This record gives sequence, structure tokens and C-alpha cells, in this order.
Amino acid sequence: MTAARAPIRLGMVGGGQGAFIGAVHRMAARLDGHYDFCAGALSSDPARALASARELGLGADRSYASYTDMVAGESVRHDGVEVIAIVTPNHMHFPVSKACLEGGFHVICDKPMTVTVEEARELRRIAEASGRILAVTYNYSGYPMIRQAREMIERGDLGRLRVVQGEYAQDWLSENLEESGQKQAAWRTDPAKSGAGGCIGDIGTHIYHLISFVTGLEAEAICADLSTFVGQRKLDDNAHLMLRFKGGAKGMIWASQVAVGCENGLQLRVFGDKGGIVWRQENPNELIFSPLREAPRRITRGGHAAGDAAARLTRVPSGHPEGYIEGFANIYTEIAAAIFAAREGKPVDERVVYPAGADGEKGVAFIEAAVRSSAAGATWVKIPAAIGEGLR
Amino acid sequence: MTAARAPIRLGMVGGGQGAFIGAVHRMAARLDGHYDFCAGALSSDPARALASARELGLGADRSYASYTDMVAGESVRHDGVEVIAIVTPNHMHFPVSKACLEGGFHVICDKPMTVTVEEARELRRIAEASGRILAVTYNYSGYPMIRQAREMIERGDLGRLRVVQGEYAQDWLSENLEESGQKQAAWRTDPAKSGAGGCIGDIGTHIYHLISFVTGLEAEAICADLSTFVGQRKLDDNAHLMLRFKGGAKGMIWASQVAVGCENGLQLRVFGDKGGIVWRQENPNELIFSPLREAPRRITRGGHAAGDAAARLTRVPSGHPEGYIEGFANIYTEIAAAIFAAREGKPVDERVVYPAGADGEKGVAFIEAAVRSSAAGATWVKIPAAIGEGLR
Amino acid sequence: MTAARAPIRLGMVGGGQGAFIGAVHRMAARLDGHYDFCAGALSSDPARALASARELGLGADRSYASYTDMVAGESVRHDGVEVIAIVTPNHMHFPVSKACLEGGFHVICDKPMTVTVEEARELRRIAEASGRILAVTYNYSGYPMIRQAREMIERGDLGRLRVVQGEYAQDWLSENLEESGQKQAAWRTDPAKSGAGGCIGDIGTHIYHLISFVTGLEAEAICADLSTFVGQRKLDDNAHLMLRFKGGAKGMIWASQVAVGCENGLQLRVFGDKGGIVWRQENPNELIFSPLREAPRRITRGGHAAGDAAARLTRVPSGHPEGYIEGFANIYTEIAAAIFAAREGKPVDERVVYPAGADGEKGVAFIEAAVRSSAAGATWVKIPAAIGEGLR
Amino acid sequence: MTAARAPIRLGMVGGGQGAFIGAVHRMAARLDGHYDFCAGALSSDPARALASARELGLGADRSYASYTDMVAGESVRHDGVEVIAIVTPNHMHFPVSKACLEGGFHVICDKPMTVTVEEARELRRIAEASGRILAVTYNYSGYPMIRQAREMIERGDLGRLRVVQGEYAQDWLSENLEESGQKQAAWRTDPAKSGAGGCIGDIGTHIYHLISFVTGLEAEAICADLSTFVGQRKLDDNAHLMLRFKGGAKGMIWASQVAVGCENGLQLRVFGDKGGIVWRQENPNELIFSPLREAPRRITRGGHAAGDAAARLTRVPSGHPEGYIEGFANIYTEIAAAIFAAREGKPVDERVVYPAGADGEKGVAFIEAAVRSSAAGATWVKIPAAIGEGLR
Repeated sequence: MTAARAPIRLGMVGGGQGAFIGAVHRMAARLDGHYDFCAGALSSDPARALASARELGLGADRSYASYTDMVAGESVRHDGVEVIAIVTPNHMHFPVSKACLEGGFHVICDKPMTVTVEEARELRRIAEASGRILAVTYNYSGYPMIRQAREMIERGDLGRLRVVQGEYAQDWLSENLEESGQKQAAWRTDPAKSGAGGCIGDIGTHIYHLISFVTGLEAEAICADLSTFVGQRKLDDNAHLMLRFKGGAKGMIWASQVAVGCENGLQLRVFGDKGGIVWRQENPNELIFSPLREAPRRITRGGHAAGDAAARLTRVPSGHPEGYIEGFANIYTEIAAAIFAAREGKPVDERVVYPAGADGEKGVAFIEAAVRSSAAGATWVKIPAAIGEGLR
Repeated sequence: MTAARAPIRLGMVGGGQGAFIGAVHRMAARLDGHYDFCAGALSSDPARALASARELGLGADRSYASYTDMVAGESVRHDGVEVIAIVTPNHMHFPVSKACLEGGFHVICDKPMTVTVEEARELRRIAEASGRILAVTYNYSGYPMIRQAREMIERGDLGRLRVVQGEYAQDWLSENLEESGQKQAAWRTDPAKSGAGGCIGDIGTHIYHLISFVTGLEAEAICADLSTFVGQRKLDDNAHLMLRFKGGAKGMIWASQVAVGCENGLQLRVFGDKGGIVWRQENPNELIFSPLREAPRRITRGGHAAGDAAARLTRVPSGHPEGYIEGFANIYTEIAAAIFAAREGKPVDERVVYPAGADGEKGVAFIEAAVRSSAAGATWVKIPAAIGEGLR
Repeated sequence: MTAARAPIRLGMVGGGQGAFIGAVHRMAARLDGHYDFCAGALSSDPARALASARELGLGADRSYASYTDMVAGESVRHDGVEVIAIVTPNHMHFPVSKACLEGGFHVICDKPMTVTVEEARELRRIAEASGRILAVTYNYSGYPMIRQAREMIERGDLGRLRVVQGEYAQDWLSENLEESGQKQAAWRTDPAKSGAGGCIGDIGTHIYHLISFVTGLEAEAICADLSTFVGQRKLDDNAHLMLRFKGGAKGMIWASQVAVGCENGLQLRVFGDKGGIVWRQENPNELIFSPLREAPRRITRGGHAAGDAAARLTRVPSGHPEGYIEGFANIYTEIAAAIFAAREGKPVDERVVYPAGADGEKGVAFIEAAVRSSAAGATWVKIPAAIGEGLR
Repeated sequence: MTAARAPIRLGMVGGGQGAFIGAVHRMAARLDGHYDFCAGALSSDPARALASARELGLGADRSYASYTDMVAGESVRHDGVEVIAIVTPNHMHFPVSKACLEGGFHVICDKPMTVTVEEARELRRIAEASGRILAVTYNYSGYPMIRQAREMIERGDLGRLRVVQGEYAQDWLSENLEESGQKQAAWRTDPAKSGAGGCIGDIGTHIYHLISFVTGLEAEAICADLSTFVGQRKLDDNAHLMLRFKGGAKGMIWASQVAVGCENGLQLRVFGDKGGIVWRQENPNELIFSPLREAPRRITRGGHAAGDAAARLTRVPSGHPEGYIEGFANIYTEIAAAIFAAREGKPVDERVVYPAGADGEKGVAFIEAAVRSSAAGATWVKIPAAIGEGLR
């Protein structure tokens, strides 16, 4: 007889009023009942932090004015948080993650994991030394049909891979929204907070991670042409890339935040010598699979042709759509499995997969390489290998 | 400064191991953080009830062997549940709801609300007398784009309504699944547990409710041709209906559980003299609106053309799909607003809408009329009016 | 070595300036090069007939002021036409077809074939006696993927059929277009020219024929609820029908010309105990086939899973869309095969299929039955069997 | 009163038995009745040429053993052809076009127009000197919704253009089809017949032309990464390109013939600062237009929002799909308008547009630049300007 496990105590840095992704993390944490949100340093503005905490039902003693206070305060409680979600602007990811890991907490960090590769590597070493989990929310890898695609490619359904087409097109920065006072736009277009990449960092890394996650291919070199179309903007808002993978496969990535009419147009297409697949985030419950010389088929989450990897992350039957929050929650639930295992000193079920430090480092290396390539006139640059693949 | 309200204490009858909809209710209750699931009579089989409760993390003292026990037990606790979700097979909806309401609890009952119209009316009277909330989970009315459609029709965007096309097609009962031991199939095809309607009761009522919810039209008469295509089955598995609405509009409904290739194909199309709309549950984040003599436009949840009614129930930006669980959660969150208001003795915000007793009664009246029409050779029958529209 | 055959000499009655379907017949006749359009009585207005003929390049001696003149004139030419296309308003189909057949010409008549069943039967007897071909342009049966669907059902891919859902929704008569002087709208809403059916005759017969053509099912009884939504209109503009087929299958038809946002929304869905199919006219190059318990597959015209019946009528490779004109041309080309065989005194290739007199009679019987059912309050009426199925 | 004009007498070089595109040209020429196909040198194999001519109904005296014979023979007939369609493998386009133009015939040449830019320029000079029409069948520019897109961009509906995404993905060369004896595959993968480009020449030029045709943008530089994935193949079968346009817009092109599951996946997306559009060849009757900050709308051929440019090339009402053959026929009909004007010594209606010599030259320059860029390791190369834009 399976007994429920005590929920994981979750803290959060960032994610107060006016934020976007913090609320998503909280819903993702709640959906499957594995987490109990109980502490936060929700804003760098203390008044806003407190107001946000109240609104979210945190006890006054669990609302902190800064992440350092939180790390200190939670460390000494017998009921202190076990894991901290970091949902600040990018430039804070590194210092906050570092403090949390060093304070003995598991970390769930938003992407990109850090602003520089050096920071990313340092963080990974700290995580390794601490024995704590360092997860990065490349959340699209939590969609069941993405798991299905990965499973199919791994077992050879597509044969030897040849071509990968990734794209992620949005339109919300088609105008100079950052000057209107919109908070999300403001920090994402500010190099001091966002890092060297604009669109390439904000969404380009998502599709880059997804390609790696689904195909297992490693990019060897890229050629990137980054553009800034909206006047006065300091970072890129459109990115064109060509990729070469180890083993000979080729790819393209288009990421844009000025593609009028595109809402959250993340799409992945992979072609091998035995088949091809298409997946679109805006209709995420289906995966189109075309076997060579056969009619394309529509594999649905929960449907007749879906396999084990998708079934593990499926809550409701086929035809009952799951969406973004469920996909995000899958990452949280995978991390929960790892935390439960850590609690119990048991190995993690080998089917459990979530993006971790190495993925985080690769994402940052990708941004840096893209910026470097583009600055050099869109020439080919190598992607440096991540340190110690054996690291978490 | 808004402070979080203490979560609503939720109990559940039914929904133990092997059940389907109970888990959905629990996720829906968790998603927005308004409920705290703390007691259950999760199965009519006491061992299963206990095992289910343990697995779900209920305290042993909050797991009951029967709903009568639960009503008795929770009534006397100072931290007893405030609302009880009833997710049993249909035949139990009435006695359990009755007991819960009479015990002073709010009720969230799955559909159809009862097996007969008489029961439905009695339940409504009990609810009225008790002053408790009686909600019915016609959950598809919680989808934001359904709210958008309702808002548009209400303000006249479609002009005078002429034609309504509703359908709900599934295929999971295309074979004699009930004889395989599948629990969901078994009770749904058993008149003793399901009532007089098979497919017409299980899913036909959903589309019937949705038509009423979105259009505001009242069906006056229907002509139903119910069929049973799978041998030995005792209830209908396919339903064809024609409808006549007060005021002259006409409609059709097709509901099926033997439509091979259809997963959860709920679809609503409404046409007036100034425009038409199409909504499909499997891609619920969009509503196609065709104004007379203009190009059709795609209105998305969170997108530029969505209005207030959809915005109220929207969690993540356009292009980030929300799905079935979010739609279901919207109903729970609307009910939560009503319960909070009741707690505080305040009126409910007038924008809060959820299916209640009158909707439940109408659904049962629809099933009875359809069965009667079909038994008479598919002739026209009147739909009786619900009692006291003023009742909750 | 195959030598080209001399093109078939084609005449036309109706189809002059301001007409719609006549131009389609001419394109259909031209596309595959089997016909040579050389004579016409293109309008009942002699001046318009002459102007139309000049514009279309007919010799002055081959432009006739009336169909009787044309029958007389062409009969005595050694190079007279062999087949006459009749594209007049409905009320003229019978007298013109009769005259043409009796004059020794093959006939290609637009639908509905006549205004009454009696006329239809008389015409079939005349055709039989004359030995001439009587074809009726239920053109949608010429689409390759419709042939594919028919082939699949015939060989049992769907198993025993259970449910048929047909619909044909347009919006061009959503307003009172007939009073604006629009010629097409004017005669189609005029009982004196159109017959007893409006929408049910104009487009309802198309979907009814398609159901019969694809499934092989024979409707036994129907229950029709016809409506007229646009004020002052004399004929129905929306039709709801339930059908019962011999052998137990059931069906529904929705036909409308007031469904705002629908352009030419002809759609057919068929479900059996082993599979289901969906075909939509507006995207006619694909057929979705869902085998029981398997993933749906997309069969495309010219694609890997298309069979012989579709291949026979395919001109360009998969992914190069063919459309309405090609489908219409397929009917003309099938008829050409029959005319060539008649010329040469050979039997027609058994794969050649085109709608003929029996289909025409059934279509008229369907209209009459629908009108009768609706007039009786939407009650069930039998569909009379067509005379001598052995007749052409 | 408009009188029909005598059809244009058409000859053809290539297009005999076993060919593909010749049959398409003939259907395109027939559809609108403007051409009379009356002579051919249909194959370089004299026996096949004769058999093909017989099968197509050409007189024995109009079937020629070579194109030089045809030019000679038709030149001296009083009823000789006026225009010659050239549908041979690529390497013959130049010599045949040259001979035809010098023989005084108008030319309709398949794409790419020649194998080298030098040939292209020479041909343009010859055409200019001869006063004859030199048209190139970039047939996709004949689709009505492509004309709609062009019209919208020209009048500023999209504002200042920023990003262009073009793709053309097929899968028919995913395997080594050329070694199976398939004639189409054999010559297209043979540099001696196809020229230096494989996929980039066969289909890459189509999307490149379409971009130019629709947007009016001129590519300034490209960076191309061509691949050959199928072993032993001598030419590229997949092409990735980045583009920079004059004025600052950027673009990407993906062309592939090894993308399993893609049939004829030509797609164009254009984004400006005021709107975006999407068009897909496989569903060519619709254009999705997203104005900035508004709901996307679906503009259909013949529908309410289509403008004059699309209406000119529309044969049947909205919802009645037109396809590939109709689009191709539009090019033929545009050319016919130019030929009629030439016959009559009148200026061509300014709305008439068809791809001509300059487009042909640009297409060849594009292929050469792509091959050069890729050979240099996928570096940026300039696209040379076409000679004398004033030339036809």
C-alpha cells in the first residue's frame, strides 16, 4: 500500500506582484500536490515582497526582505524549506543559486541559468560539492509528447538523423514595450539584467535545449545572425541560426519576438532517414509522425500510439487537452521524485528526467556563442563542450 | 493590500483508486490554491477507501467508510470540511448530495446531478432550504473561450441566433469494454448505476449544457434517435437529436461513444444573423469568429481580441495553452469565490458563474426527454421547464 | 501505341453571361482535353445567348436562340454535338434533358435532375429507350479522396457501418440577397424555378448523394426540419435531418446557406466498428482514417497510402493540391470514357463511375421526402425506392 | 461586346512520355481555353517523341524529332506555333530557348531558366533583341493568395518589412531513387543535366522567387549550407540559408528533398512592423493576416477580404478550392494576355504579371551564389545584381 509522502517544503526568490513566471512555478508546484509553498523573498523591494507574501498566504515570519535573509532564516528552522525556486531576472540567478546551494537547499532555477559560462561552471561545481539538486526550468521538456518524441528517436524510429528545424516565434516585443513601463519587457531588454542575449537568451535557449533533449544531438558549431529591429532596443529581438551537429546532422533555428501574429510559436521538426516528426507547442497534445513511405500518423497524449515515456507524465485521457502548466508541473514532479529519493537516500528512478546543471551550462554557452558569432558578422563558431558531463 | 484567504476545506465522496474524475476534481481544487483536501469517503469498499485515503495523504481520522459516516464525522469537527465533492456513479449523486446538504455542507456534484427530474427538484429545494451551495460540474463551461463566446453572444455580436450545432463524439466505447472489467465502462453502461441514459447522459448533457450556457437559448422541444450499436449493451451509445428553441432558433446535437477516431470531440458552433462562432474543446484556446461579410478571425485566450470574461479565467499568456484541468479548475475557483462570499456574508461578485442546481435539473430533464422521445420512435417531445428559475 | 481519340463534341444549354456553373462545366470539359465545346443555347434571352456565344468563341451558326433550335440544328449537322450539358435553372432540367435525349444526344444534367420524382422517372425511361447516357453532375463524387473513401469502405476497412455525419454549410444566403438582383440567389430561392426545395435541393442533395456514393448505404427513412430564417424568403435556407439506413446504420445531415463564416463547408464523416473516416471538401486532398485502437493517419491524394481508385483520378503528385475544378473534371472525364466506349461499341471500363439517372432520381426523391417530412412537423417519412435499379 | 480571340498556337519541347511537368503545362494551357497545343518535339528519343505526339493527338506533320527541326518546320507554316514551352531537363533550357527566340517564337521556359548566369544574361539579350516574350514558370507566383499577399505588402499593410521565413520541404528524394531508374530523380540529381544545384536549384529557386515576388525585397547577401544526405548523390538534397536584404530585412530559407513526411511543403511567412502573413502552398486558398495588436484573420480566395489582385485570378467562389493546376494556369493566362497584346500591338494591361527573363536570371544567380557560399564553408557571399532591370 503506497502512502503519500509529506509534501516538499518550497521557497521562492522573486515572483512577487507584477512578475510572470513565479506564478507559473507556484501553479506547477501545486498541481500534483508534491510541494508546500511556505517561504519567499518575493521581491527586491521589501514592501512589495511583504505585500506579495501576504497575498499568497505566507506567514509573516516566512516572508523575507532578501534572499540572504531567507537562506539564513530557513536554515535554522526545523521546518525550513528544502528547495528554493529562483525566478528573478537573469543576472540574479547565479548569486542566488550559489547562496541557496551553499545554504544546503536544492535549487530550481529559471533559465538561462546564469549570465556567463564561467558562472554556470562554478555553479555546477558548487552543486556537485553540496550534493544538492540544481535543476533548470527548461519547462518545454516536460510536455508528454516531447517525451514521446525523445523515446521514439532514442529507439531508432526516425533512423539516422539528418535535419532539425527549430523555431520559437513570438510577437510581444514588436513595439518598444520596454519604454511603456511594462516590467517584463524592461528587464528582458536590459543587458544589465538579462545578459548579452535578448531574444536568443529568453527563448532561443528553450528551443536549443529542446533540440538537444529530444534528439540527443550535440551542436558542434553555429552561425548566428542576430538582429535588433525595434529602435533604441539594446539587445537582439530576432535570431537566425544555422547549426552543425556532431555526426553530420544539420539544423536551423529561428527565434523572434517581433514576428507579428505569433504568440508562443515554439515548434520542433526532426527528420531522419526512416521518418520525420513535427511538434508544435501551441497544440502540444499531438505529435505527427511520418514513417518513410507511409501515411503520417497523429500520435496523441493518452492515445493508442503513445508510449511509456508520455504515459508517465499524463494525467487525463486523450482528447482532454493538457497544456503549458501541466508541462511545467511535470518538471516539478520529476524534480520532486529526485528530492523524495534524496530524502530517502534511494537512487532516483531512471525514468525521471529533468533539466539540470549541464543543460543550464550548455544553454549559456549557446547564448555566448551566438552573440560571438553574430558580432563577428555571422560566421561559424564552435560551441564549447560542457564541463564534466558526469556532473549533475 | 489583499491578504490570502484561508483555503476552503474540501471533502470527497467517491474518487478512490480506479476512479477517473475524482483525481481531476482534486487537481482542479489544487491548481489555484483555494482548497485544502482533507477528508474523504473515497470508495464504497472500505478497504479501498482506506488505501486510497492513505495514498492521497489524508489522515486516518479523515478517511471514512461511508458518506454517512463522513457527514456525521465532519459535522462535529471544528476543522470539518466546508464543501463536499461528489464523484460517485450517477445513482449515488442524489442520496449523497442530499445527506451533505442536510448536513450543512456545500456540495459540488458531478453530472448528471441525479437520475430523475423528481430527485433533481427535491435536491434543489433542499439546497434552497439549507442555504448551501449546490454546484454541478458541467466543467466545459469553465473554459475561457467559452466565456468569451457567451460574452459575445450576450452583447449581440452574432445578432439574432438562428442555428446551433453541438457535438460530442468519443470512441472509447466502440467495443464491449464493459465486459472486459474496465470499471469506468462497467458502471456507465449499467442502467442501475447510470440511469436511463448512456451516452446521452454521460456526454450528451455536457453539450446540451454548453449550448444553454453559451447561447442563453432555452430548448422547447427535442426529437431524439438514440441507438445502441455495441451488442449486449443496455444503454444508448450514440444519440442524434434535433432541437427547437424558444424564439425560433433550431439546433442539432450529435453525441457518440462509438465514433472511431474521436477522442473527446466536443464542439460548438453558433450562427446568428450577424456572425458565427466555432469552438472545439480539443483546441480550446481559440475561438473562431466570423462577422457577417468579413474575414473570420481567430480570438485566442489571452490574445488581443479576448474580452473581460475570458481574461478573468486566464492564468498564462496567449500561446501558452491551458487545457482541461485549467477549465475544470475555473469552475472550482468560481465556486470558491461563492464560498468565500458565503463565509464572509457578502454578495458574490456578479461576474462569478458556475453551473448550479437549475443547470443540474435541466440536464436531467434533457436526458429524460431524449429517452422518452426515442422510445416513442424519435418523435418530438417538450422539454419541461425547470422549477423556480429563481432557485439556485 | 495509344493514339489520342477525337475530342467529344459538346453543346451546352444555359451557362451564358451571369451564370456560374456553366463556366465550371466548360473548364471541367477542357481540363483533360476530351471535349470540344462547339455549340450552345446559352441563355433564354436571345441577345444574351448570342453575346455569350461570341465571347466564348462559338461560331454564329452554332449559337442557338433556344434549346429546341439547338436540338434541331445539331441533329442535322455531320459534325453535330454528341453530348449536351444542361446548366439551366432546375425547372428546365426535365424538358431540356428530354428533348436532348430524344434528339439522340447524350446528356450531362446539373443537379437536381428534375423537379419531381415523376419527371425523374420519365427521364430515366427515355434515356433507357434512347440508349443515350444520362449523367448528373453530383460533382463532389469526382474528388479522388472520395473515391479512396468509397474503396476503403467497400473492402471493409471500416467494418460494419454505424454512423454517418454529413454536412454542407454555406453562408452566401445569410441575407436577402435575392432582392438585390443577384441572379444566382434569385432563381435558387424561387419555387417556380428551383422546385420545392431551397437549401435542401441546392446543396442538401449533394451531401445526400455523397453519403450514398461513399458508403453504399440506402436511406430508408428521414426526419427533416427545414427552416427559413431570412424574412420573405419562399424556400428553406437551413435543413436539419436525421436518417435511418437499411441495415441499422444511422445518420444526420445539416445543410445550411445561412451559416455565417461557412464558405463551402461540405464534410463527410463515417464510422464503422473497425474504423472511421473524415473528409472535408475545403481541404479535399486528404482523408483522415482512424483504424480502431490505432493512431489516425492522413491519407493524401497521390501519397503513400492512397489506393487505385484515387490514383486513377490523380493528375499531379501529392502536396500539389487539386481542387474543385479537377474534381468536376473527373466526372467529365469519366463520362468521356463512357462516350468513347459508346462510340466504339465497347463496354465501359468497370472502374468508370459517374452519377447517372438513378442517382438523379434518388436526389429528387430525397428532396420531396424532406419537404414532406418537414411540412408534417418533422416526422419520419419513408424514402421511396428508385425504379429499376438496373436502369442507367 | 467582347469576342473570343483565336487561341494561341502552342508548341512544346520536351514533355513526352515519362515526363512530369510537360503534362502540367498542357493542362495549364488548356484550362482557360487560350491556347491550342499543336506541335511538339516531345522527346530527344525520336520514337518516344512520335509515340508521345500520337498519344496527345498531334498531327504527324507537327511532331518533330528535334527542337531544331521544330523551329525550322514551324517557322515556315502559315499556321505555325506562336509560343513554345520548354520543359526539358535544365541543361537544354538555354540552347532551346535561344533557338526558339531566334526563330521568332515567344518562349515559356521552365525553371531554372539556364545553368549559368552568363547563359541567362545572353538569353535576356536575345529576347530583348527579338522582341519576343521570355517567360519562366515560377508557377507558384500564380496563386491568387500570393497575389493578395503581394498587393497587401505593396500597399503597406505589413508596414516596414523585418523578417522573411521561406521554406520548401519535400521528401521524395529521401532515398536513392535515382538509382532505381526513376527518370525524374535521375536527371535532377545529375550535374550534367541539372546544373550545379540539386535541391537548391530544383525547389530552392521557387521559394527564392516567391520571396522576391511577394515582398519586393532584393537579397543582398546569402550564407548557404548545402548538404547531401543520401549516399552517392552528386548534388545537394538539403539547403539551409540565411539572407540579408537591401534595407535591413533578414530572412531564412530551408529547402529539402529529404524531409520525410513533407510532400510539397512550400511556405512563406513575412513580418513587418505593422503585421504578419502566413501562406502555405498545400492549403493555398487561404492567407492568414495578423495586423499588429489585432486578432489574426483568414483571408480566402474569393472571400470577403480578398482584393483585386486575387480576384483577377479567381475562377470559382470561396470554399471551392483551386489548386496547383489553376495557379499554373494563371501564369499561362497572364502570358496569354501579353501575347494577345503583342498580336494586336497594344500595351499589356498593367495588372498582368508573370515571371520573365529578369526573374530567370536572378534565380540562376541565386543558385550560383548558394553553391559558392556553401563551397567556401557557408560564408556570406554577395548576390550579383541582374543586368538591366529594364530588360524584360
